[in-house]
Amino acid sequence: MGAKQVTVVFQPSGRRGQIEKGKSVLEAAQELGVALESVCGGKHVCGKCRVRIEESFYARDGLSSSRDHLSPFSAEEKKFISPQEQESGYRLACVAQLKGDVLVYLPEESRGKQQVIRKEIRDIPFHLNPAVKAYFTELPSPTLEEPMGDFERLTRKLNEKFGLEGLTIDYPTLKNLPHKVREGNWQVTTLIWMDREILEVLPGRVENYYGLAVDIGTTTVALYLCNLKNGQVEAADSMMNPQVRYGEDVMSRITFAMQNPQDGLKRMQEAIIEGLNQLIHSVAQTAGITPQEIFALTVVGNTAMHHIFLGITPLYLGVSPFSPAIHHSIDVKARELGLHLHPAANVHVLPIEAGFVGADNVGVLISETPYEKEEMTLLIDVGTNGELVLGNKKRLLSCSCATGPALEGAHLQFGMRAAPGAIERVRIDPQTLKVRFKVIGLEKWSDACAPEEIQASGICGSGIIEAMAEMYKAGVLEKSGRFKGGLDSPRLRKGEKGNEFILAKKEETAIGREITISLADVRAVQMAKGALYAGAKVMMNILGIKRVEKVVLAGAFGSMIDRERALVLGMFPDCGLENVFSVGNAAGDGARLALLDREKRKEADWISRRIEYIELTTVTTFMDEFVKAMVFPD
Amino acid sequence: MGAKQVTVVFQPSGRRGQIEKGKSVLEAAQELGVALESVCGGKHVCGKCRVRIEESFYARDGLSSSRDHLSPFSAEEKKFISPQEQESGYRLACVAQLKGDVLVYLPEESRGKQQVIRKEIRDIPFHLNPAVKAYFTELPSPTLEEPMGDFERLTRKLNEKFGLEGLTIDYPTLKNLPHKVREGNWQVTTLIWMDREILEVLPGRVENYYGLAVDIGTTTVALYLCNLKNGQVEAADSMMNPQVRYGEDVMSRITFAMQNPQDGLKRMQEAIIEGLNQLIHSVAQTAGITPQEIFALTVVGNTAMHHIFLGITPLYLGVSPFSPAIHHSIDVKARELGLHLHPAANVHVLPIEAGFVGADNVGVLISETPYEKEEMTLLIDVGTNGELVLGNKKRLLSCSCATGPALEGAHLQFGMRAAPGAIERVRIDPQTLKVRFKVIGLEKWSDACAPEEIQASGICGSGIIEAMAEMYKAGVLEKSGRFKGGLDSPRLRKGEKGNEFILAKKEETAIGREITISLADVRAVQMAKGALYAGAKVMMNILGIKRVEKVVLAGAFGSMIDRERALVLGMFPDCGLENVFSVGNAAGDGARLALLDREKRKEADWISRRIEYIELTTVTTFMDEFVKAMVFPD
Repeated sequence: MGAKQVTVVFQPSGRRGQIEKGKSVLEAAQELGVALESVCGGKHVCGKCRVRIEESFYARDGLSSSRDHLSPFSAEEKKFISPQEQESGYRLACVAQLKGDVLVYLPEESRGKQQVIRKEIRDIPFHLNPAVKAYFTELPSPTLEEPMGDFERLTRKLNEKFGLEGLTIDYPTLKNLPHKVREGNWQVTTLIWMDREILEVLPGRVENYYGLAVDIGTTTVALYLCNLKNGQVEAADSMMNPQVRYGEDVMSRITFAMQNPQDGLKRMQEAIIEGLNQLIHSVAQTAGITPQEIFALTVVGNTAMHHIFLGITPLYLGVSPFSPAIHHSIDVKARELGLHLHPAANVHVLPIEAGFVGADNVGVLISETPYEKEEMTLLIDVGTNGELVLGNKKRLLSCSCATGPALEGAHLQFGMRAAPGAIERVRIDPQTLKVRFKVIGLEKWSDACAPEEIQASGICGSGIIEAMAEMYKAGVLEKSGRFKGGLDSPRLRKGEKGNEFILAKKEETAIGREITISLADVRAVQMAKGALYAGAKVMMNILGIKRVEKVVLAGAFGSMIDRERALVLGMFPDCGLENVFSVGNAAGDGARLALLDREKRKEADWISRRIEYIELTTVTTFMDEFVKAMVFPD
Repeated sequence: MGAKQVTVVFQPSGRRGQIEKGKSVLEAAQELGVALESVCGGKHVCGKCRVRIEESFYARDGLSSSRDHLSPFSAEEKKFISPQEQESGYRLACVAQLKGDVLVYLPEESRGKQQVIRKEIRDIPFHLNPAVKAYFTELPSPTLEEPMGDFERLTRKLNEKFGLEGLTIDYPTLKNLPHKVREGNWQVTTLIWMDREILEVLPGRVENYYGLAVDIGTTTVALYLCNLKNGQVEAADSMMNPQVRYGEDVMSRITFAMQNPQDGLKRMQEAIIEGLNQLIHSVAQTAGITPQEIFALTVVGNTAMHHIFLGITPLYLGVSPFSPAIHHSIDVKARELGLHLHPAANVHVLPIEAGFVGADNVGVLISETPYEKEEMTLLIDVGTNGELVLGNKKRLLSCSCATGPALEGAHLQFGMRAAPGAIERVRIDPQTLKVRFKVIGLEKWSDACAPEEIQASGICGSGIIEAMAEMYKAGVLEKSGRFKGGLDSPRLRKGEKGNEFILAKKEETAIGREITISLADVRAVQMAKGALYAGAKVMMNILGIKRVEKVVLAGAFGSMIDRERALVLGMFPDCGLENVFSVGNAAGDGARLALLDREKRKEADWISRRIEYIELTTVTTFMDEFVKAMVFPD
């Protein structure tokens, strides 16, 4: 087998598997249950199954040259793919045959119907006080008696009219100042950052100007375009983090940087900058503006994403004692980063708390503001790591739990991201062990569909939680996580790697075989939830409390998880279902708040220094708590 | 004639003239008295007469493509000129024949012996307190218990040890911080700008670090490399301002920018930046350091040089009301300007006073500090314009007089810069009208040499002043400036353009004909000195004083001028010879002071705003004073 099979990874779903050499990319998609448009059914005539092959990606033996791992570009493909697109790696999935490992990206137009999930934009209350503001002034024109320089003429008027003092001006903007003030016949709009630096001087009266909030996740990058005049979101978009080709999780990207000291970091930074530039272009187009009208950008992301975005080596984040290059928030000119917005725009990167608790967590904090409240709140943000915050206005602790990727659906036997085709809800009848489930992209539950309608292709994070909770309630799993012996059911079988529970039957799936949950999968989730619970427990002990009053689940995972079943599994300390809240992309909300209200930036700097980071590996009781937390609660 | 003659300009001497087409560049040099090495005497065999032809230059009909105006590059030249040099415009002067106007630059090695004049470096008293300082620290290395970020670790220690607060860090420097602190095993030297911004962090203990002071003149650029640890000048160099190819004076460069809106400014800025980079490379080599060890640079220059250096359009400096883009001093990152020193270095450009009174004059001010003194001082800085400052600690006025280029020796019939071969001293016997003179580059006076030793090639600014003063004293010139009628002397003759005085006989010159002073030359100098005198007078009237107590002459012209003869001519109000001082390149000294002492920067900002600029064209009495000042004093 081995050498006859190659690894194929599909993005943005993250679905991966071993496929026989010689098969087409379209066949691989079908085997792995990835919904790819194919109107002609693989006859090479409709041109709908266009995919983009990433240049290279990080596979078994290090970086693999992905594009060379397919049959050569053929004449048939030329009909549907321009030379420029060919250059960017476009292929027809039905034509291109597998010769080695490949990373395949499905452009939106090639994804099966109903395959696009957009993050919802939460209405968040804010006080509008953006870092950049616009000021309109009419200046007296210079005369021989009063020939004062353009800059002084402008700043004197800004002082008289708005009380602004000690203004400086971005150097490239200064270069164009003489033309701009004259073009506007001495009537100009001045864009000023933090009442301190003139970013731009525009002829005439300019009413609208914009800012961006960006959440750089390890997997997904989300971006919001806001009108800074009123705070409204004008457009939003998201994409897969293009760094995925260099490693799917934080540690593999740090490894990539380490193994490619020459240019590994540079390539990853360029990938995210280029990706952001595409997103910026796209949201600007949606809103009908030019990127030049965007004068501010705020960024949140975990510590590694933060470092790579800034081009700072992430090496030391990956080795003990995991110290970052900088905690403070920083402001960098868009042009220094190569971002295509107004070149004078200051990119504000929110502060980091500690090695593993990054600017994304700070975003959650300033969005949820536990430091303003009396109630003892536990904030849980689950990604590849689980970041926990516990406390109230008196004291706030944070820690990072190595949950592993199981809760994101990754590295499970049939794991996948929360993408169409993923099983996200599960119910098991305790009597009959009959299973019904719901897949993303389909309104109805499986028992309300004909089997061939369902087309399940894997299990996402919330699906595995529900499945395990139901299996536990139904007695399939013991308190320890082991499969109960002696149960006789067609749903249970002995697989290659031990016991398995059949969640979806062959005819219900898109992959031509059953979707199952193995003991290894159960163990991976137990580890993850045990780490989360133990982390929370350690912090409760430090604060001397027996019970939390409120649990807030942040992140995409938090929005999809079934709170009741999470409590059944013991993912976090019980506090009554009515006190568990899900707040969606709170990190992104934090970025938006920092964009719209400069005071939120101060708040972020303040709280990131005030919060006490607990390094769990140095807490002697952590392992005890962890072992205890592995089992399911009574 | 006309079309058979072409204009040839030699730099750095500025010598120009009409030469017959078909002659070689070497012949042109000989006709114009430009000392060019030629060991073989034009036989095409020694290769010593290498010159660089500027790509293009500003001639009669606008921009002229200079390199095409010579006979094609020949096989003979290939022996002495590499393909790369050919690309840069190198030719053999004895081979290349004139077909059109050309601008010829003489590399130092091709100039005749003793042809290099270096500006002397004045010892100036200073208080060492540079904008950039180095701080050595040993940091505790991070641990799991104390994993604080590198930046915070460093700044905390800098605070503990040196009391530095609120430090920021240059973004590209931050990118390398994690490597640098570890490379130095947590012992590092931090270079900090104005106790505010970290420019660099270097492993281990670094003792020496450097700064540059630059004086960008319209014609000459001077540069001083100082060790910021002790303030010593480690190396100094100067060059012709490479923008000379785009226009010899300020107005022609402004015109060039105006007539080439696409790239005229850009080309002039690139020329000065590229020239500075060459100078920086050369002084760094002399001092045995790398440009990366240079962390600060201060710049003075007149308003047009200031604007062009910064890439700001000079257009509005050339039209009424002559308002600049900015008066304030500014700090720009070296990398934003493309200067090759440490990329984080902040380039400090000193402030401007008014449209025509630039940062060079501010340099003179902070060097001479008339604002600290009781005596009523008149500061005169003569370049293409004459900048005057009058006042004392109570009040200070400045103005700019349109002196024209005569005082720099330009645009006179036989005018040239103060370069070897120029007549700089003149004595005329009132009885016999016998003339003796001294040329630059020769120790002896003309009457102590054999005629063929002298090789005079023109008259420089100080030479014309002396000649005119002597002619006036000898009764050759009347009080009004006219040639006295009825004088019978072989020194006097009627030329094409009226009366002429023969200063050097044919056999005493290198140009094969007499060097003379015409009535037009006399009138040009009268205009210049009249403007200076009238400017001073207007300011004296405003201050209500009858007499100045001290006259300070700044600039190269000021160092060479004979003070007594300047008084004879009435260049400035009389105050007794013992109260007239010459201070050399005080503008450059000011740049050096601002480099070595940050308080001098504050002083510059303060005085540039406090000084009152008098726009002479708006002063009703100016024309009266000007007409009166044209005549010579009794």
